[in-house]
Amino acid sequence: MTLPPHESDPYGDVGAADFRERAHELVDWIARYLDAPERYPVLPPLVPGATRARLTLEPPQQAEPLAKILEDFESQVLPGLTHWNHPGFMAYFANTASAPGVLAEFLMAALNVNGMLWRTGPAATELEQVTTDWLRQLLGLSEGWFGMINDLASTSTLYALAAAREADPALDVRRKGLAGRDLPALRIYCSQHAHSSIDKAAMTLGIGLDNVIRIEADAEFRMKPAALRDAIAADRAAGFLPIAVVATVGTTSITSVDPVDAIADVCAEEKLWLHVDGAYGGVAGAVPELRHLLDGVDRADSFVVNAHKWLFTPMDCSVFFTRRPDVLKRAFSLVAAYLETAEQDMVVNYMDYGFQLGRRFRALKLWMVLRAFGAEGIARRIRHHCELATTFAGWVKAAHGWEVAAPHPFSTVCFRHVPAGVPPGEVNAHNARILDRVNESGDIFISHTMLGPTYVLRVAIGNLRTGADHLARAWALLCAAASGP
Amino acid sequence: MTLPPHESDPYGDVGAADFRERAHELVDWIARYLDAPERYPVLPPLVPGATRARLTLEPPQQAEPLAKILEDFESQVLPGLTHWNHPGFMAYFANTASAPGVLAEFLMAALNVNGMLWRTGPAATELEQVTTDWLRQLLGLSEGWFGMINDLASTSTLYALAAAREADPALDVRRKGLAGRDLPALRIYCSQHAHSSIDKAAMTLGIGLDNVIRIEADAEFRMKPAALRDAIAADRAAGFLPIAVVATVGTTSITSVDPVDAIADVCAEEKLWLHVDGAYGGVAGAVPELRHLLDGVDRADSFVVNAHKWLFTPMDCSVFFTRRPDVLKRAFSLVAAYLETAEQDMVVNYMDYGFQLGRRFRALKLWMVLRAFGAEGIARRIRHHCELATTFAGWVKAAHGWEVAAPHPFSTVCFRHVPAGVPPGEVNAHNARILDRVNESGDIFISHTMLGPTYVLRVAIGNLRTGADHLARAWALLCAAASGP
Repeated sequence: MTLPPHESDPYGDVGAADFRERAHELVDWIARYLDAPERYPVLPPLVPGATRARLTLEPPQQAEPLAKILEDFESQVLPGLTHWNHPGFMAYFANTASAPGVLAEFLMAALNVNGMLWRTGPAATELEQVTTDWLRQLLGLSEGWFGMINDLASTSTLYALAAAREADPALDVRRKGLAGRDLPALRIYCSQHAHSSIDKAAMTLGIGLDNVIRIEADAEFRMKPAALRDAIAADRAAGFLPIAVVATVGTTSITSVDPVDAIADVCAEEKLWLHVDGAYGGVAGAVPELRHLLDGVDRADSFVVNAHKWLFTPMDCSVFFTRRPDVLKRAFSLVAAYLETAEQDMVVNYMDYGFQLGRRFRALKLWMVLRAFGAEGIARRIRHHCELATTFAGWVKAAHGWEVAAPHPFSTVCFRHVPAGVPPGEVNAHNARILDRVNESGDIFISHTMLGPTYVLRVAIGNLRTGADHLARAWALLCAAASGP
Repeated sequence: MTLPPHESDPYGDVGAADFRERAHELVDWIARYLDAPERYPVLPPLVPGATRARLTLEPPQQAEPLAKILEDFESQVLPGLTHWNHPGFMAYFANTASAPGVLAEFLMAALNVNGMLWRTGPAATELEQVTTDWLRQLLGLSEGWFGMINDLASTSTLYALAAAREADPALDVRRKGLAGRDLPALRIYCSQHAHSSIDKAAMTLGIGLDNVIRIEADAEFRMKPAALRDAIAADRAAGFLPIAVVATVGTTSITSVDPVDAIADVCAEEKLWLHVDGAYGGVAGAVPELRHLLDGVDRADSFVVNAHKWLFTPMDCSVFFTRRPDVLKRAFSLVAAYLETAEQDMVVNYMDYGFQLGRRFRALKLWMVLRAFGAEGIARRIRHHCELATTFAGWVKAAHGWEVAAPHPFSTVCFRHVPAGVPPGEVNAHNARILDRVNESGDIFISHTMLGPTYVLRVAIGNLRTGADHLARAWALLCAAASGP
């Protein structure tokens, strides 16, 4: 049997010497990359199939050297990537894989801890408890929250709504399900601007899209509590069963902030589960002068904030808080015989709080990121991003033919170009063309959204590498694209 | 404003020089770690709160140097970890964070690609398509499977059952949900030995635990197709709505293999969705002489195999295949305005095939692992693990007072000690004591399961570092523990 030279053990891992050499090279590559991701275009050419055409379509029969694989990564894969760490990435919500987060992921991979049970990683479980509590303190929330780290806000919101569905033990959804019994349709309420993850959770949970009731927002895109109260009353009168309200601190499209305190009043009166989606905006609680944006969150039953969005942590790291872990556990706990442990009544086994059994050691990266920046450093950076957004909005407001489309309480600005010469019916298409043009530059990547019938452009600031110079470049590109043919 | 020396930019990331220096140190640390994880006890002392007591309970106000954070990792966190990469880890399903996988995770973290849309990482999407197809070929499956990578089999199985729920468009569960309408209870069938993720999926999807029907298994722990057929008929007669059957190739407790082909016959007759759970055992398809264990899988509607279990890939990497991506998409697709792109009808946007919007660039690690070992190298290693299991089972069979409790088609052996002197009613407790004793050694970590009323010990071989010597050590520890007071 001939083995490629890098395999020191035919049954073992790639040899230690090879790993060490390649890993040191990779450190240098990554250090250069993180130092200036702008050496690459932020968006690659948008040609479907271009990467596939560079790849081999059959699996390799023989082992290949790591050096060759990494070479191929650079020549075959890298040219087709979108660079989320690029300072010109201002689409969706910009984020950052910071140095401490990247190091933590490296370490997490090597340790490969699966913290499904306390026993399978006691320090992983306890660090998750302590670190989520650090975040709670940083955001100015009171004591009494149970914290856990999920992959995504999609999951955290689904968990919140699953708990809401189980909050009345008499329904016993976990055992009986929703079909084949005399149960009214369950209803969930959120703003017309709330995130699609709520709809997807409702689809997944068997609640159904039709039962996600979108509540009208005011002129500043905030859910109207009176409209919420009316919708709930109308549904109760029609025989529906309201179970939860989702309020948002920083909606995805326009970063508006629902009046959580007033919504909490409604939920208290109606005995509904209140979930607050702060996936993006929740981090603002770390900035003293922005903390008021989280007013009322402490009254919620659950709350999600994503460290992998605006808290400098690599994907994925969604921090989920609930005041009612007992209900969450009732919704999800099921201990197979092989997972029973002597200590199970004395510890938190995180597998009991969701449908996901396996769990990566995500607490490690959050712990390292929070320490590497510190509370003051985090507040300073979040504040800076908000100031950059205000600067950008100022440029838009001051420019002829441009308008800011919504308030910008955080670091994201919605705006559009409404030049004199373009007929009203063509303004949307005009802005869509601007988007395509600036995105072709390779210097910036922005996205859009619809505010009702209005197409607006979005600049979302959130990467630690984005500074005033990149913002100025974005603005120059936008102005040039707007005045083009 | 005074800044700690490692912060070169008060608004930016940790300085590049600091990152580079620490990363090189970390490479050396990780290389040493991966070379001999057995320098640490596989299980730490099982003292709840021990890690917490070493940690600071308030978040840091000031930034701290990376070097200090990594030092604290080693002194505060590491002593409380379970070492999944330890050669003595033989609990649950042993797995491996191999060198190529660890390097890939490092790179993934730095790139931080979120492949929710094709546009947000064209190469991530296309590499996922190509790499999952490589795996399909490696396992000997025919063409026509759509592949995607999820976090966990918990998710993949939930996605399969969500698709099954949506397979009849007339039900329109996505829109109407399951409650408040004239719908019979939906039913799912699986073996009495199937994994709890099926129950958890049923709880999550609003199907309910009561509607997961556990089908009797034969003496070798395989689902009885005749019993399945009877259960479906009885349920139909009673007004239930059967929607899916889950067959397992390598059940979690005992690694038995359901007769997938015969079950596929039943599903074809009854027009039910067939999902095959090969989270652990599916990888055996890569070994020519074991490929028959996957007979019938090609007839399924969906199939899951976890690369992070027995395919040397760090957590998390669950490969999900379906022959009916259109149905999966109907169950989950919902495109918010801000996620619409010009190319959406020409490409795969993976966000359309699940409730999870964000997605890590997991294809990169699978691609690197498959290349680093190659088809032959993978088959050789899987085969070796099976041979080790056979060796171990041979020791058990030959030893007085010990018995193998089930067939071992893969790399996992269930067994127990039934010594002459112990009354039948105390045999379970006797084996539980053996488990505790060997796990206290720090040299091995094994788990248990229940086969009906019988408590059995499990040795699961799956880490690339585990060799005959570690197995011999495990056996010596077991024999010593069994003969102790």
